[in-house]
Amino acid sequence: MQSDFNRHAKRVGEVQVRLKELSLDCLVVTHLPNVFYLTGFRASGAVALVYLDKLTLITDFRYITAAEKLKSLSSRVSSFSMNLQCIEGSYDETIIKTLSNKKLLRVGVEGEHLSLKRWSWLTKRVGEVLELIPTEGIVEKFRMVKDPSEIDCLKASGQLLVKTLPEILSFISSGRTESEIAADIDRAMILSGFEDRAFETIVASGANSALPHARPTSRRLRGGDLVVLDFGGVYNGYCVDVTRTVCVEYSKERAKRMHSAVLEAQLAAIAIVQPGLLVSDVDSKAREVLKRYDLEEAFGHSIGHGLGIEVHEAPRIERAGSLREARKKLRLEEGMVFTVEPGVYFPDFGGVRIEDDVLVTNNGSTILTDASRNLTIC
Amino acid sequence: MQSDFNRHAKRVGEVQVRLKELSLDCLVVTHLPNVFYLTGFRASGAVALVYLDKLTLITDFRYITAAEKLKSLSSRVSSFSMNLQCIEGSYDETIIKTLSNKKLLRVGVEGEHLSLKRWSWLTKRVGEVLELIPTEGIVEKFRMVKDPSEIDCLKASGQLLVKTLPEILSFISSGRTESEIAADIDRAMILSGFEDRAFETIVASGANSALPHARPTSRRLRGGDLVVLDFGGVYNGYCVDVTRTVCVEYSKERAKRMHSAVLEAQLAAIAIVQPGLLVSDVDSKAREVLKRYDLEEAFGHSIGHGLGIEVHEAPRIERAGSLREARKKLRLEEGMVFTVEPGVYFPDFGGVRIEDDVLVTNNGSTILTDASRNLTIC
Repeated sequence: MQSDFNRHAKRVGEVQVRLKELSLDCLVVTHLPNVFYLTGFRASGAVALVYLDKLTLITDFRYITAAEKLKSLSSRVSSFSMNLQCIEGSYDETIIKTLSNKKLLRVGVEGEHLSLKRWSWLTKRVGEVLELIPTEGIVEKFRMVKDPSEIDCLKASGQLLVKTLPEILSFISSGRTESEIAADIDRAMILSGFEDRAFETIVASGANSALPHARPTSRRLRGGDLVVLDFGGVYNGYCVDVTRTVCVEYSKERAKRMHSAVLEAQLAAIAIVQPGLLVSDVDSKAREVLKRYDLEEAFGHSIGHGLGIEVHEAPRIERAGSLREARKKLRLEEGMVFTVEPGVYFPDFGGVRIEDDVLVTNNGSTILTDASRNLTIC
Repeated sequence: MQSDFNRHAKRVGEVQVRLKELSLDCLVVTHLPNVFYLTGFRASGAVALVYLDKLTLITDFRYITAAEKLKSLSSRVSSFSMNLQCIEGSYDETIIKTLSNKKLLRVGVEGEHLSLKRWSWLTKRVGEVLELIPTEGIVEKFRMVKDPSEIDCLKASGQLLVKTLPEILSFISSGRTESEIAADIDRAMILSGFEDRAFETIVASGANSALPHARPTSRRLRGGDLVVLDFGGVYNGYCVDVTRTVCVEYSKERAKRMHSAVLEAQLAAIAIVQPGLLVSDVDSKAREVLKRYDLEEAFGHSIGHGLGIEVHEAPRIERAGSLREARKKLRLEEGMVFTVEPGVYFPDFGGVRIEDDVLVTNNGSTILTDASRNLTIC
């Protein structure tokens, strides 16, 4: 446990250095995944005030017992200490009250996560000595490159999913509904050790498999169906996210061709992953392969997204044609973790998607979810 | 299906009247539950632009097939028509592009849901002819009082949960872990017909039951444990949310006393529900009963929250001591639906919470989840 808190101390220290560079006296961290990253505290209500020399964790009645336990553990480690505060009134009232007691001038807020309403309320209440400054991605920038303990978490999460995959495939059979199978997958993930599912499990069969984000329905699987299974779990707070596509009873020729092209595209994209590569090159590589099979048009989403504490986080693996200039020029760094998930979709026939989670290593990549990608017949 | 779209037409019409009152030419609806309420379209990416005379639904590649189906169905009903637009670039770029083609002056945005970052980006891009105005709760105000079709949905959702409850209680037994039981509950809800769970199921046993929002752990249930089960499902897009507290193998005297007091408090609070009552009176009533048993201090949260499309929505059933003046002075109206869930928690012993969903009727209330609240021994 001790090393845990040293890790958090290091992260808070990095944010504090950044605050100094930005001439900020404090950062109000309202985004819960960022609070978890900095403190190890997970709750549906919490705010961290990161000052230049300390951290105050604010939470409410529901979580105060858990927070007190965390504080008592952390206080045994000299390099990380935090003050704890239970809310009085609302979170925002408590933030204002706490900040007003300090001699602070410039206080950052998380512009991507704070609502316009909260921003308006807070700015009206801070008074004149204190200036609130919108910031962007301060904590996320550090989260984008995983540290060794996070890589261990993500590897363990990936391994757990790989181990569970054979059981998950055993749930697929003709006559069962998408919803039943999704419920079985969710339960299997929990029984194998995941704390929770990472997102709503997708089981999309037949024509539904052409909807990249279908929700499970009462449709019963039939022979010849393509079935897209997209699921993931949370383990020690870190997400895993994979997709496999299978066929029911037998596979049509068209399904085989689609699957084989998508798999080739996925492996080609993964093969070029290494530090320094433009993120958009990962996407382009998959598109280049699909083009050879005349399937480029059927690949309508970008190829992947970072994952870690959140199942969608930086870096987004954008396509070259996307309008966000800055993002597509981002280059891969050792320690980034993201999905590689090309897919092709035909509304009249069905879809195929294959997804794995990839860690950028010093000279290439490691697949964290390396389990069979064959077009299994179930 | 026809009546469905007429219902949406009516809702959009009510919002349009409100926009006129506020001298707004358009409302940019970015909050997905609001988009669903107004259009019937459910997706993880969508924006509705409500003009004074029409509605444009914006979505992306992943959901465009589903949106086209909805549009084709809705176009058969004269009173509700919408334009459909697939995003080009990002959602926000598409919003700007779409708005720029109109001769609009004052365009509202949802201040509670739009992030400060998106607000800054949009205001910079709209140019000078167009003014963006933060608004608050325009759609939510209508959602707070359920219409007949919503009441039908919520009743059906409640009935489905009541029917599933005996099976759910059968999962509880000594030696099983909280996580295993939670996984079984989630699966049982899906198999009984729910589309999804409404939130992460809580199974909190022994000392964990004193954490009002505990997450399931690997702790194994033991004889004498109090176990708080808090779970709910989504059915036709509407949420149900109940809590029952049970004992494993036998019940300690203290547990019985706590349970009996909480049940008395809950029933007393429900009994006074009727149109015109201050929401804070519902909370006070439960507190008054708990005070008689010297348990008032152990009831640290407020008594309930509205539910419908979201599992937490307006009205919040605030306590009298809370600082939000406006909210505690809110009065109940026929058609409001909310939870009544008093609880008492002792970190050294455990907790008891009992929760049901209540509909305000013209002269009192109906419990939508009316199933046994006894301290069942499992």
